[in-house]
Amino acid sequence: MTGPLGAAAAPKANPWQLPDVSGMVVAVLGGTGSQGRGLATRFTAAGMQVVIGSRDRVRAVETAGEVGREARGTGNAEAARAADVAILAVPWSGHEAMCRDLAKALAGCIVVDCVNPLAFDERGCRAVPVPEGSAAEQAAVLLSESRVVAAFNHISSALLGDLSIPRIETDVLVCGDDREATDTVQALAEQIPGVRGIYAGRLRTAGAVEAITANVLSINRRYRANTGFTVTGLARG
Amino acid sequence: MTGPLGAAAAPKANPWQLPDVSGMVVAVLGGTGSQGRGLATRFTAAGMQVVIGSRDRVRAVETAGEVGREARGTGNAEAARAADVAILAVPWSGHEAMCRDLAKALAGCIVVDCVNPLAFDERGCRAVPVPEGSAAEQAAVLLSESRVVAAFNHISSALLGDLSIPRIETDVLVCGDDREATDTVQALAEQIPGVRGIYAGRLRTAGAVEAITANVLSINRRYRANTGFTVTGLARG
Repeated sequence: MTGPLGAAAAPKANPWQLPDVSGMVVAVLGGTGSQGRGLATRFTAAGMQVVIGSRDRVRAVETAGEVGREARGTGNAEAARAADVAILAVPWSGHEAMCRDLAKALAGCIVVDCVNPLAFDERGCRAVPVPEGSAAEQAAVLLSESRVVAAFNHISSALLGDLSIPRIETDVLVCGDDREATDTVQALAEQIPGVRGIYAGRLRTAGAVEAITANVLSINRRYRANTGFTVTGLARG
Repeated sequence: MTGPLGAAAAPKANPWQLPDVSGMVVAVLGGTGSQGRGLATRFTAAGMQVVIGSRDRVRAVETAGEVGREARGTGNAEAARAADVAILAVPWSGHEAMCRDLAKALAGCIVVDCVNPLAFDERGCRAVPVPEGSAAEQAAVLLSESRVVAAFNHISSALLGDLSIPRIETDVLVCGDDREATDTVQALAEQIPGVRGIYAGRLRTAGAVEAITANVLSINRRYRANTGFTVTGLARG
């Protein structure tokens, strides 16, 4: 097929065809909190090599012991250097400092930002504005030598951490500008039984995926449930 | 049950128990575009009284004729005055002007804002920042005598408008600060077969529900599909 200018149009890659990531090393930085611990639990259960990083190496080692005997714990920088894919799992208040501290250690790495810029008050939860547009875009500015992808923003840490729940029927929305990186992170998401990793736009569209977590928390409160999202109308090709 | 201050705690209302809205008059303002036409088609098919409003009364009458013989078309202000529930369905570029023009006609009315502040360029679709936080919050400022609710932001107009598709398996996320108004709009959403109307937070959380439509469009493009969202982990009580 040729395009209007006579150039051969590149064939569209099958969006469901994702790389094999089972041999990759995944670091979960700030991995002693509930979201990091939950993700580490699922990737360890899937047989991946998981390194939990923390500013507090002792807590990282303890958490690794709880997550599974194949996981190991260490300092954030050492975990970052070991990683093929590094997940930033700190609270929003620690996001900028972590990016600045680890920029060199994360060079060349795929960085997954699952941080949600949220604030809580007596009326519940709300998204807070970020000058760069989103946490993920802030990370992309500060981690200019890494490939930053937003993902795992609104998957329940309670469900992730509880291996008695065999499948999590939630889609992980993945935003980023580098196709190889987003494909890799989609495949990483699919290491969790029940989860589909769905490409959901460029990094500049990550803000809504972060902010909608405030809506998920509002839904959970009104309906007393532990909810997630799935995309309808998508048949796996 | 008494609370810590001795006051009787109000029993939590069942979030699935919604009012009967079948006899209400629904106005779709700016209803000659694809989203408005799609919503009008479904509410008319459900047997509701539908009034399509437009700045161009002739086009409103024409559109009403296409939507179904029970729908009627008229000017925006007349449609607004007839409505129990009025849906704002203009493009974002016309949102502020419509709110200013119709503030008086919409006084006392439940106003449903389904407008998404989006922009398109060669890299696709993105959300644009709104000084008030979201289109719905802008409407709430300008329509101070109405009860503003955000809903129907990311339901596909192509699916809405095609009655050969009997069920639309999408949840409509409803954000607002007035429980009676959000319950009414949830019930309105459920007039569309397959749709659940889900309360998703206060009006200040509407921005993510508007902006995530850019992600839906990115998903549609990558997967060549017509997608929506459903909330998982919710069992109807």
